[in-house]
Amino acid sequence: MERICLAEDLTFSRIIHGSWRLREWNYSKEQILDLIEFCLEQGITTFDHADIYGNYTCESLFGEALALKPSLRGQIEIVTKCGIKLASKYGLKHYDTSKEHIIASVHQSLKNFRTDYIDVLLIHRPDPFMNPEEVAEAFTQLKKEGKVRYFGVSNFKRSQFNMLQSYLDFPLVTNQIEVSAYHLENIDDGTVDLCLEKRIPPMVWSPLAGGKIFTADDEKAVRLRDTLERIKNELGAETIDEVLYAWLLVHPARMMPIVGSGKKERISLAVRALKLPLRREQWFDILQSSMGHEIP
Amino acid sequence: MERICLAEDLTFSRIIHGSWRLREWNYSKEQILDLIEFCLEQGITTFDHADIYGNYTCESLFGEALALKPSLRGQIEIVTKCGIKLASKYGLKHYDTSKEHIIASVHQSLKNFRTDYIDVLLIHRPDPFMNPEEVAEAFTQLKKEGKVRYFGVSNFKRSQFNMLQSYLDFPLVTNQIEVSAYHLENIDDGTVDLCLEKRIPPMVWSPLAGGKIFTADDEKAVRLRDTLERIKNELGAETIDEVLYAWLLVHPARMMPIVGSGKKERISLAVRALKLPLRREQWFDILQSSMGHEIP
Amino acid sequence: MERICLAEDLTFSRIIHGSWRLREWNYSKEQILDLIEFCLEQGITTFDHADIYGNYTCESLFGEALALKPSLRGQIEIVTKCGIKLASKYGLKHYDTSKEHIIASVHQSLKNFRTDYIDVLLIHRPDPFMNPEEVAEAFTQLKKEGKVRYFGVSNFKRSQFNMLQSYLDFPLVTNQIEVSAYHLENIDDGTVDLCLEKRIPPMVWSPLAGGKIFTADDEKAVRLRDTLERIKNELGAETIDEVLYAWLLVHPARMMPIVGSGKKERISLAVRALKLPLRREQWFDILQSSMGHEIP
Repeated sequence: MERICLAEDLTFSRIIHGSWRLREWNYSKEQILDLIEFCLEQGITTFDHADIYGNYTCESLFGEALALKPSLRGQIEIVTKCGIKLASKYGLKHYDTSKEHIIASVHQSLKNFRTDYIDVLLIHRPDPFMNPEEVAEAFTQLKKEGKVRYFGVSNFKRSQFNMLQSYLDFPLVTNQIEVSAYHLENIDDGTVDLCLEKRIPPMVWSPLAGGKIFTADDEKAVRLRDTLERIKNELGAETIDEVLYAWLLVHPARMMPIVGSGKKERISLAVRALKLPLRREQWFDILQSSMGHEIP
Repeated sequence: MERICLAEDLTFSRIIHGSWRLREWNYSKEQILDLIEFCLEQGITTFDHADIYGNYTCESLFGEALALKPSLRGQIEIVTKCGIKLASKYGLKHYDTSKEHIIASVHQSLKNFRTDYIDVLLIHRPDPFMNPEEVAEAFTQLKKEGKVRYFGVSNFKRSQFNMLQSYLDFPLVTNQIEVSAYHLENIDDGTVDLCLEKRIPPMVWSPLAGGKIFTADDEKAVRLRDTLERIKNELGAETIDEVLYAWLLVHPARMMPIVGSGKKERISLAVRALKLPLRREQWFDILQSSMGHEIP
Repeated sequence: MERICLAEDLTFSRIIHGSWRLREWNYSKEQILDLIEFCLEQGITTFDHADIYGNYTCESLFGEALALKPSLRGQIEIVTKCGIKLASKYGLKHYDTSKEHIIASVHQSLKNFRTDYIDVLLIHRPDPFMNPEEVAEAFTQLKKEGKVRYFGVSNFKRSQFNMLQSYLDFPLVTNQIEVSAYHLENIDDGTVDLCLEKRIPPMVWSPLAGGKIFTADDEKAVRLRDTLERIKNELGAETIDEVLYAWLLVHPARMMPIVGSGKKERISLAVRALKLPLRREQWFDILQSSMGHEIP
């Protein structure tokens, strides 16, 4: 599988596996291990997590599986996040990007994963109460201690990215954002432009719009389904999912879609999408179906 | 006529002639030549085109007229654009800013104009599927070959401009944007600010709002007409068109309005507007009529 | 009181006194002097003005009070603004950031304050008709002549700030913006991010939302009042005003709230807010009450 370079000694697999629903799958650690190994066979080596996924349980579930075969750690990249505190644990949902919380969260993540380093740590959400000097101190300390190799952000808009970057001595390596044929906001508002300008490949969450395209009855979803169905047939693809993944994969920003499924077949179809020769006209056909009007 | 410096050896006439409706005028090549010579007498030396104007015909119409008097080529600046593919030719309207298409489009434009160089080539619209590395390669090759002297963009927002610029070894020389007393979007959203920051004078399309101000019944148009009529009288101008042009011409961003008319009288009145001493209070009077409320 | 560093030899008191309603208080010059001295006792040394406050009268009222005790001038920082022309004096409200007007306005301010220097001059509003070269010339001349020590802006968005800054040889030292728990626009749109990125502490106007929070019946105001009331009790504060000030004061951007009151008690409570240990969860509780929904 194609690999994307994020830093001198860091590459990600073009397709990333996401664990935000890992707990819901109710897998045993053997089953999770099996899923990880299936991903590796497919060429997927990058695994996306967050401290809070599964109400603070997914990192551990993944770590327990990994502990069954410790040699796997060197073959994968672990991405995790911090900065959100959930109501379940803290009474009121809020963000915390204090130095203290970032470091404590990473220490807990290391324990959960049974590893001694995180490949990339992301700030989960732009925090309107962020003290960028504290974030910089936390990142610098974690890097120096070898606990986190690289840093990035998630859901950051341009002003937020530029602001935080200005406090760091090293470049942020990615911005994990929501993009899909259904959700164009980050294309429209210049967030993807900034990724291209800064030469950072975005990780992409909800590449299938959380399933909305398959089930929703709103006009946009209906229009999109029709177009995707037609283009699926033109391309000889098996599912419109593949077309949706291809729509991201052919984009010049080197988007890395996160596949959040525990089913091997659904992981495979994302991988198959890498070979789908979606053409420029088809890309715009899908775009315009989503917009609901012709481009100007 | 005042000339605006865009690069060390490139100046534009303050008023630019635009050819997007050239085909509709149904002029013979002699008539088009006459129009070009009329422009030159008025001091207008810069002519704005696009590959797609008149459904891919306007460049040729202009080129045929130019061929009647080849010595004119050295006296004018030709601006043209590429990057849009029309449904009439391509089945589905879409953008194409691939290296291949940019170069092919310029080659066709050179043939159409019967010239061996374009003064300034613009990317017609921000392309959400743009590969800026390909654009940079195309621009660099065309520059090296002497086929295009300078490059710019059209309708680019700040993030799009900064992104593309970051891939180029030379500065973009203009951004062609829509601005008029009726259409304030590019003033409101910071696009004009960016032109000032980057020291690039914007070319301005639809300086008369495509005629909306003269005919539309919406409240904004009615308010504007009243104010323009009053200020026309204060200034002793003959038409509100002149006031609309003056509103752009007195702005510090060195806006270069594009006059898209085939009628000599309408070209003349844009030129006359250069001498209209529109005062700051009047500029704000017009602005506030457009906004529909007082400035804060 | 904590002091905020804006430049090598310029600090402001964390709480700033604002004079935009100075005329309405109908104070004698002795009373105004008493108010100034009260502020100084509290540690407030920075006084915010504008040429136009009180329909061009507030600077003089303050200056007359200052003249009663000239030794005070060296103990305070005077901030004033220019760039708005009111209808009362000019027939039509408009902006004027011409070199001529900036310089004339400062000369008048110096007379009004009976001083020979202004500490910081702000452009009052982003002027869509601004000629940044003229602003730069005016600033440079005023600085050279010692009439103004430092320069800033007010109500500038990111594109406006970056544009003007690019014409200046010295950094703007502040952006005076509206921020309160009720008015989140400048947090949402990246203006506060830019302040952090540029390392400039913002002066904050309407920190209590002009009283809306106390009296308005809209859902947002009602929600906010409830939350502020609850948190006031949690913190043992006396008024929700203190909680509102604290909400700004604990923010990492080093916001400097402007207290625009002539009543000593209301000034004191802003000062008391400096010691209110508002916690992160409480900050977000207030934020979410204002937004009307949970953070994502």
